[in-house]
Amino acid sequence: MANGAPIFDRVALIGIGLIGSSLALAMRLHGLSRHIAVSTRSAPTLATAEKLNLGDSYTLDAAEAVRGADLVVICTPMGAQGAVAQSIRDSLKPGAIVTDVGSVKATTVRDIAPHLPDGVHLVPGHPIAGTEHSGPEAGFAALFPGRWTILTPSPQTDAGAVDKVRRLWEGCGSNVEIMTPEHHDRVLAITSHLPHLIAYTIVDTADQMEDETKEEVIKFSASGFRDFTRIAAGDPVMWRDVFLTNRDAVLEILGRFNEDLTALQRAIRKGDGEMLETTFARARAVRRSIIDAKQHIPDVKPGDESAQ
Amino acid sequence: MANGAPIFDRVALIGIGLIGSSLALAMRLHGLSRHIAVSTRSAPTLATAEKLNLGDSYTLDAAEAVRGADLVVICTPMGAQGAVAQSIRDSLKPGAIVTDVGSVKATTVRDIAPHLPDGVHLVPGHPIAGTEHSGPEAGFAALFPGRWTILTPSPQTDAGAVDKVRRLWEGCGSNVEIMTPEHHDRVLAITSHLPHLIAYTIVDTADQMEDETKEEVIKFSASGFRDFTRIAAGDPVMWRDVFLTNRDAVLEILGRFNEDLTALQRAIRKGDGEMLETTFARARAVRRSIIDAKQHIPDVKPGDESAQ
Repeated sequence: MANGAPIFDRVALIGIGLIGSSLALAMRLHGLSRHIAVSTRSAPTLATAEKLNLGDSYTLDAAEAVRGADLVVICTPMGAQGAVAQSIRDSLKPGAIVTDVGSVKATTVRDIAPHLPDGVHLVPGHPIAGTEHSGPEAGFAALFPGRWTILTPSPQTDAGAVDKVRRLWEGCGSNVEIMTPEHHDRVLAITSHLPHLIAYTIVDTADQMEDETKEEVIKFSASGFRDFTRIAAGDPVMWRDVFLTNRDAVLEILGRFNEDLTALQRAIRKGDGEMLETTFARARAVRRSIIDAKQHIPDVKPGDESAQ
Repeated sequence: MANGAPIFDRVALIGIGLIGSSLALAMRLHGLSRHIAVSTRSAPTLATAEKLNLGDSYTLDAAEAVRGADLVVICTPMGAQGAVAQSIRDSLKPGAIVTDVGSVKATTVRDIAPHLPDGVHLVPGHPIAGTEHSGPEAGFAALFPGRWTILTPSPQTDAGAVDKVRRLWEGCGSNVEIMTPEHHDRVLAITSHLPHLIAYTIVDTADQMEDETKEEVIKFSASGFRDFTRIAAGDPVMWRDVFLTNRDAVLEILGRFNEDLTALQRAIRKGDGEMLETTFARARAVRRSIIDAKQHIPDVKPGDESAQ
């Protein structure tokens, strides 16, 4: 990505965890904003952000950070979005754009939109990127290239505002796609939220085994279990908010999953090898599609892949 | 691993898929056998093995391969182990050792032991290693270093025979642990078989989505789903046999999993954020234990890890 003129004069980041800090570094690297104002309500986190030189100014007061900002990016856990919107409403400059990075989008609209004054543009966003780490010290500029960011503006939103947010994410190296909040939440329920819920469950099931077995679960984790623990290592507060906010879509897809699992369970109990083999062969074909779509992990050492 | 004197004069590999071919290459690399006899009942597979120069002799007749062998390694899917044992029984030399690489061990003992003549030593084994690929062209010598191989001999088994099989796997770079077949099957049910069953289920659930969503599931798979597809990409016949043979242990652990999943489902429905957060935090701690035990994937690019 060649650096052109900055897209923004002043960007305010409210919340400076993994996504906020990665965005700060990526904006800096690609020259996307003349000034980056960093705000978080935790003094130690703010001190860490300042030590890491993530921004140009630092404050515990979100209202102060957004004053004069062209773009405000709310990077807090989703449960805090409403309170943040309320605290900044009177300090937003006319024509400012507000976006966020939350994993559920219908609630962003519900929690943030009512607080914004006329003339301020809401462009909800979700960069589908992350690691198992959290906090400002986990951020890195290379988090976004090759990943997708989904924007969910309403059809009435100012096209120029949507375009600027798109250019921000593209400037960070991300691909951008636009869809409705409801569609986003349905797609993410199956691609992200259900997998995480299942992974959390299986890790917890193992954690409740007898002590001796538990030790061996760790020791022999390379046989499949390990992959689940990586998925189940995200920030607990963020994931709590995901399931609280995308409840309906998650429960719907969980219902389908339970049906399918029950069918496999019955096949195992009855010794129906044909049903098992057919299902497993179908799943393998899906894996091939993902490799064809270049959304796999290309550089895992072969011996470290999932084992039998 | 320094090459010493070969442990065996003649090793017969019955079945030459991912594990058989990897073992052939590792034995060759580390000089563990003077002669490697390769046998499979598929003529095209045998031709591939020969083109890849995996052994010193090749035959479609398992009985011929085992004649004069000090060690016979049965590397077929588990469903074929009984038939293989029956077909080689009259050709085994006195004092020969028979081992296998199956993912379930109680059935190895049940299916193979009754066919072996007196004076032949059975040392069941399971190298916990694999990739999503299968067949002789998928094999590579570096599959075993850093992984575990579990041996499940009976207490009556000749100690010298057990030691030779241990040295074979250690010679390939694997760690070796000895336990009972029943204990192995319980541990693997949680660390490997349940994760695979769950992964197969979730991939299949996604595969049944409406066409438009299905396309997006592939596109946005990096958000968690992709990791499941890797786990669900193993050989369908091998996995069918795993679930048919380790039925009781899998159904038992699946029962526990279902209880835990139902509890989380109820927490989501009721909006019990505290329960969700506590469970997720516990799972994250398990991940830390695995990293401490050095059983994680060290070289995944950060941006390619599980994302929100």
